Amino acid sequence: MITVVILGAGNVAQHLYTAFRNQKSTEVVQCYNRKGILIHKDQKKASITDSLNNLKKADLYILAISDDAIEEVSKKLPFENRLVVHTSGSVPITTINDKNARGVFYPLQTFSATKKVDFSDIPFCIEADNEKDNQILRNIASQLSERIYDINSDQRNVLHVAAVFVNNFTNYMFSVGDEICKENKIPFEILHPLIQETAKKITEMEPQNAQTGPAMRKDYQTIERHLKILKNNSQIELYKTLTKAIQSKYGKEL
Amino acid sequence: MITVVILGAGNVAQHLYTAFRNQKSTEVVQCYNRKGILIHKDQKKASITDSLNNLKKADLYILAISDDAIEEVSKKLPFENRLVVHTSGSVPITTINDKNARGVFYPLQTFSATKKVDFSDIPFCIEADNEKDNQILRNIASQLSERIYDINSDQRNVLHVAAVFVNNFTNYMFSVGDEICKENKIPFEILHPLIQETAKKITEMEPQNAQTGPAMRKDYQTIERHLKILKNNSQIELYKTLTKAIQSKYGKEL
Repeated sequence: MITVVILGAGNVAQHLYTAFRNQKSTEVVQCYNRKGILIHKDQKKASITDSLNNLKKADLYILAISDDAIEEVSKKLPFENRLVVHTSGSVPITTINDKNARGVFYPLQTFSATKKVDFSDIPFCIEADNEKDNQILRNIASQLSERIYDINSDQRNVLHVAAVFVNNFTNYMFSVGDEICKENKIPFEILHPLIQETAKKITEMEPQNAQTGPAMRKDYQTIERHLKILKNNSQIELYKTLTKAIQSKYGKEL
Repeated sequence: MITVVILGAGNVAQHLYTAFRNQKSTEVVQCYNRKGILIHKDQKKASITDSLNNLKKADLYILAISDDAIEEVSKKLPFENRLVVHTSGSVPITTINDKNARGVFYPLQTFSATKKVDFSDIPFCIEADNEKDNQILRNIASQLSERIYDINSDQRNVLHVAAVFVNNFTNYMFSVGDEICKENKIPFEILHPLIQETAKKITEMEPQNAQTGPAMRKDYQTIERHLKILKNNSQIELYKTLTKAIQSKYGKEL
């Protein structure tokens, strides 16, 4: 049995607490947050504290708090040489005060308070100062998910940039598609199945091999026709920039 | 019972033939292709012809042939005043010779020869010269799918541009994400669940409302940090162009 203390009251803290409740090898012995509030409806009042000085002894302390608070809270912890991890995608492991053994326990997914989370498909990116602690984090993560990756702080930074492309920028492509449809009284939902298929395809083949379209085929007639259809300057600039990028990438390989 | 003749031997012809075999209200009475080949393993030789002059009488003729051949083949049909449709996303209805009643029967999805197709989730875009023919196309499509849309030729053109954004350009975003991961020895599959979630989200809310990320938040510190992490010029240009587009779109609305 591994004992855990969760610090924080946000989405990640709540979802982790709920997930740990449902399995037996890890026990959350205490939760801390500044207001001393319950983070789960079935939680007992006695297992909550609003004071860092009252923290119980545990094998692992999870700082599921805002990025900015990690340095300060880790410094205020009234003990040394225990394992303390944060759950952030963009804060280096070294931000945690080094009087304790440090680690990162980062579930790579967006969480919302209302939506129930199934951790089993969520990748955990773990990092630790030493092999023994890495193994502890791996054991705990493996109770929640089958997708566990050793990712160091530099790689985690890079992963964040890659996530901007596949999540934020991709969503913006959907938004432009929606805009074009609306301008022409076409229901955007016509494109939903194509979007699902596009996302599904890259789990079966590399995105490089799934690339299709007029830019890839160097079909200049269609590209010209499309540019005439587009009226909005921002849409035209995006179309041109992306077409150029695709052509220069695949031009080299042809 | 509606009788149909399918012209063509490509992916769309094959998948439509297979789909019509499995239901009872439509009967494919004949198939035509230049070589007179079977397009389904259980097809009878007698139901195939390689000559337009031997075409049987039917309620509907589906030209599931290449875009370039639609004008010529429709001209060569040895009959008048019957319903003739094509299945193309980018050819206007008027390309079909007007000696017959014209229509479009366009399944909006990418088909491959090897992968089995479930039409039930595929949107059909239909168009016809008159209401009676529109109703016939709607009846036939409704036997295959629940998603049927009246889309005229101009809208179909626009839909094709929107599809370039949500399919081709989106796949390119995945491909850049993959590139960034590979350059830093991170397995791209870490990002698969996030990609699936991104695609799923827009079936639940408008993409405009699902937009997140540093560009949207105007988080200039993170944007600067990301631009320093990126080494590849094409990646940097894309990051800047998309960030600018997102900011100018949401800047106005804030």
